[in-house]
Amino acid sequence: MNSTLTPCEFCSTPGGAVLWQNDLCRVVRVDEPDDPGFCRVILRRHAREMTDLAPAERDALMAVVYVVEETLRETMRPDKINLASLGNMTPHVHWHVVPRFGDDRHFPAPIWAAPRREGAVPPERSERAAGIAAALIARLGP
Amino acid sequence: MNSTLTPCEFCSTPGGAVLWQNDLCRVVRVDEPDDPGFCRVILRRHAREMTDLAPAERDALMAVVYVVEETLRETMRPDKINLASLGNMTPHVHWHVVPRFGDDRHFPAPIWAAPRREGAVPPERSERAAGIAAALIARLGP
Repeated sequence: MNSTLTPCEFCSTPGGAVLWQNDLCRVVRVDEPDDPGFCRVILRRHAREMTDLAPAERDALMAVVYVVEETLRETMRPDKINLASLGNMTPHVHWHVVPRFGDDRHFPAPIWAAPRREGAVPPERSERAAGIAAALIARLGP
Repeated sequence: MNSTLTPCEFCSTPGGAVLWQNDLCRVVRVDEPDDPGFCRVILRRHAREMTDLAPAERDALMAVVYVVEETLRETMRPDKINLASLGNMTPHVHWHVVPRFGDDRHFPAPIWAAPRREGAVPPERSERAAGIAAALIARLGP
């Protein structure tokens, strides 16, 4: 698919504060106050679906997703990790990597569901999120 | 993690009508009237997170997820595919593979969000879903 014919948000913008990047993808911090530590892994070239990528490219992208998952488990100590490639609004391959906590605003529902509670974020959770970039670079290199 | 200490729904039940299985995982049909074609790929052994699996096991599981995605693209001809590994309610590794349509009940929101419309499913969409099992076996073998 020709990206000049299908401009999309993630073709023209990084989609968040860039924590790490290589030729394949960017890891960005999603500024979602309810979910500190929420990251996205965004493919740099335009493609709509994982099966539009060659198998080696899928594996390379998922390898970054797994490093982000490991980094979030170590840094945020969540109760669960949620991974999702949706793209209904922005049909450009990107992965949501979300650390989830039993007391977060939506748990155990997905973050896209109606909130279950007010879900005030403990200050130490936001503090931990500040360490993600360094922990990611320690694993992936600068 | 010892599954006898952490019994979960997907340790004890297939989690849907089994369309295909091997030693690693099961592909099941999710009976969700709003989303014909919705499948799950469920790891057979108990594990909570993708990064609890060895890299080769992750890749083997995702290879099945991608075959399901390809099968759904061919069979259902959706506007988008959604992939998600959440597991907040059932913390046992499983992937949701959901064919999405611009006129479905939640589009462009995730299927877990509040419905956007009544979203009556066209009969031909349900008919196509009946062909998924055969299309999957044609790709993966019996």
